[in-house]
Amino acid sequence: MKEVYLDNLSNARIDPRVLEEMLPFLRENYGNAQSMHTLGVKSREALDQARERVAGLIGAETEEIYFTSCGSEANNLAVKGTAEAYRQKRKHIVVSGVEHFSVLYSARRLGQAGFEITHLPVDQSGLISAEEVQKAVRDDTVLVSVQHANPEIGTIQPIEEFARIAHAKGALFHTDAVCTAGLLPIEVKALGADLLTFSSSPISGPPGTAALYLKKSVRVIPQIDGGIQENGRRAGTENLPGIVGFGRACELARSEREDNHRKLAGLSRRLIAELPAKIEYVYLNGHPTQRIPNNVNFSVEFIEGEAMLLFLDQKGIYISSGSACASKALKMSHVLTAIDVDPAVGQGSILFALSRNNTDADIDYVLSEFPPIVKRLREMSPLWAYFLKTGERKPAGPGTDYEHDHEHGD
Amino acid sequence: MKEVYLDNLSNARIDPRVLEEMLPFLRENYGNAQSMHTLGVKSREALDQARERVAGLIGAETEEIYFTSCGSEANNLAVKGTAEAYRQKRKHIVVSGVEHFSVLYSARRLGQAGFEITHLPVDQSGLISAEEVQKAVRDDTVLVSVQHANPEIGTIQPIEEFARIAHAKGALFHTDAVCTAGLLPIEVKALGADLLTFSSSPISGPPGTAALYLKKSVRVIPQIDGGIQENGRRAGTENLPGIVGFGRACELARSEREDNHRKLAGLSRRLIAELPAKIEYVYLNGHPTQRIPNNVNFSVEFIEGEAMLLFLDQKGIYISSGSACASKALKMSHVLTAIDVDPAVGQGSILFALSRNNTDADIDYVLSEFPPIVKRLREMSPLWAYFLKTGERKPAGPGTDYEHDHEHGD
Repeated sequence: MKEVYLDNLSNARIDPRVLEEMLPFLRENYGNAQSMHTLGVKSREALDQARERVAGLIGAETEEIYFTSCGSEANNLAVKGTAEAYRQKRKHIVVSGVEHFSVLYSARRLGQAGFEITHLPVDQSGLISAEEVQKAVRDDTVLVSVQHANPEIGTIQPIEEFARIAHAKGALFHTDAVCTAGLLPIEVKALGADLLTFSSSPISGPPGTAALYLKKSVRVIPQIDGGIQENGRRAGTENLPGIVGFGRACELARSEREDNHRKLAGLSRRLIAELPAKIEYVYLNGHPTQRIPNNVNFSVEFIEGEAMLLFLDQKGIYISSGSACASKALKMSHVLTAIDVDPAVGQGSILFALSRNNTDADIDYVLSEFPPIVKRLREMSPLWAYFLKTGERKPAGPGTDYEHDHEHGD
Repeated sequence: MKEVYLDNLSNARIDPRVLEEMLPFLRENYGNAQSMHTLGVKSREALDQARERVAGLIGAETEEIYFTSCGSEANNLAVKGTAEAYRQKRKHIVVSGVEHFSVLYSARRLGQAGFEITHLPVDQSGLISAEEVQKAVRDDTVLVSVQHANPEIGTIQPIEEFARIAHAKGALFHTDAVCTAGLLPIEVKALGADLLTFSSSPISGPPGTAALYLKKSVRVIPQIDGGIQENGRRAGTENLPGIVGFGRACELARSEREDNHRKLAGLSRRLIAELPAKIEYVYLNGHPTQRIPNNVNFSVEFIEGEAMLLFLDQKGIYISSGSACASKALKMSHVLTAIDVDPAVGQGSILFALSRNNTDADIDYVLSEFPPIVKRLREMSPLWAYFLKTGERKPAGPGTDYEHDHEHGD
């Protein structure tokens, strides 16, 4: 059976050229990068080279890159780290309502600790307006955090503008660029971000490593205390094989970015144009044009995301229903809720998250296998039967789960 | 030239059998463990199996294991996580003065946030006494954290007793077992630990993964907020290749533990017995018998650790000067200070951190190469010249660096 992997949002296949470069660090080069002996120096050099390559992807300086274990950790460090560093003077934080949970929950944690949090609204395409940012930022705002693009619906935000607004009030600007780094051209200085999160796995690097860009002069309180690593901002022996792979993945992403972008744009354009021609009552989520080229999120009315996912799986098509973090929750995601998708429609949402490993043949396969699945599921759907009979939609069931129960710590 | 790696404290060579099992997860099995499709299920099963193997090493239940990216992160989660979870009722924490910096600095951070911290003293062999624990623990103590053994000097603490004392006052007991798990027999229930940190790299697994054992019913506030992973206690897409490797390393460590222990004990016994017979004025740090079998820390009087390290490096012998985290600091470590080593002597400290890859031939090589190096360095040493001339020791230079400047965040 043909296999088509379209769940590249959080985990993509490691590029064999990346793995090739990791292997010596999984075999003979195991020296501690903090040790002074020959094997340690070799590791240190590899660490420095990786940091340089990672910096190169976003136009940062080498010493502005701090390695973390994942994008979530980098987001936690950005949000909590700056808030705690500047808390004497500023106790207000602005985040968008469609941020990744690692930003939203970090903000919520700070809210419990006495910070005031403002959530920016989005329009129906997922866009945040400069006016809303302007309204939200205050003289005591420490940080404005708005993602570069949304991982679930793909909408790209005009973050340069938001950075300017934040800076005018003396606030810092952070952007979660996990799903744009390596895909869109990023020059962090021109962008105006003071902090920027990006990650290895989405650009075909290994999991277990990510980075926070931290502009010189910006302070953060470490969230993992205890070591000299990462210039004292993040303790723990470095995951050197992972970091070396991340470095190589950044280098490749940089040199192949335009080709990848062109290819992905072609593939996603086909899905966006051709699927609605084959399936009735299917709606693209996110912005029609201002979107990343590897993300296609559809709501398919009258059926459920999970059922589609399982039927597609039987055909070797691997997708997820949206936010990776919430993919086991059956309710509609906080992002679809924020863009005002009708819950009855939103529960039938699926995300095609493409990578450069996908081909036109993959899209052909999806276009031929998916419509019959929708047809079959609708035939089993009471909502569809009701609609066919009455021409009207049944009222929605239970709604969003922004506060879904996945925390047991408090 | 022969190469002898004796810097296994934080980074050991990955066992080829471990790497073998990781490779499919670096190649074809890249599904997100949180996704419902076939590739995701495969990853989920591997994750579950790894968790079971990791739990098996310490006699825990599978669902009591929480993966983190390193031992430092696990220690941060243990110390800060419990303190924050129970802060309404208890605001006092007890740690030993010779803990890893990830425990000490986590405690210091809590001290800044209104907690009261008590540091337990150690005797000259690095041992903590039950009386001191008894004196320190109060009705409002939330956590007692004492390492199972010290990574720098190898002293094993009688932690069962400390756990009982903590529990008698209703406090939790945490132990950092990074340098004992896989080496000493650990049955966490018998030990009485409520939380226990251990890590992959010291047991020949890959870097970038570690675990916190968290007894059922013990609450922690997550330190990396934002995802459903690790039962809501630690966000971030799992580092699956690393976790799979950690699982295999735990399985091997468990089945080969007694053989490894016997082998390491033989090797370290030789170093401890034979080096002082070949070099005058050399002192073993730590407890003479109550010590882990892979750690030999000597202070060599009249010369400096760094010089020895560099000269040994030229002979292909790779060691570090002690605490990995402080290995670039030239001052004496907080551990040697705590056990009251004379700074003039302590600056000449080196750590032989053995792994099961070492052999008797390695020890022979060290025993033949090290004494001439010491001789040569002493010939260049004004301290040694002074001692030869006067029969007296010159007074010490600058001392410890427990508060060494490695934090820029605050």
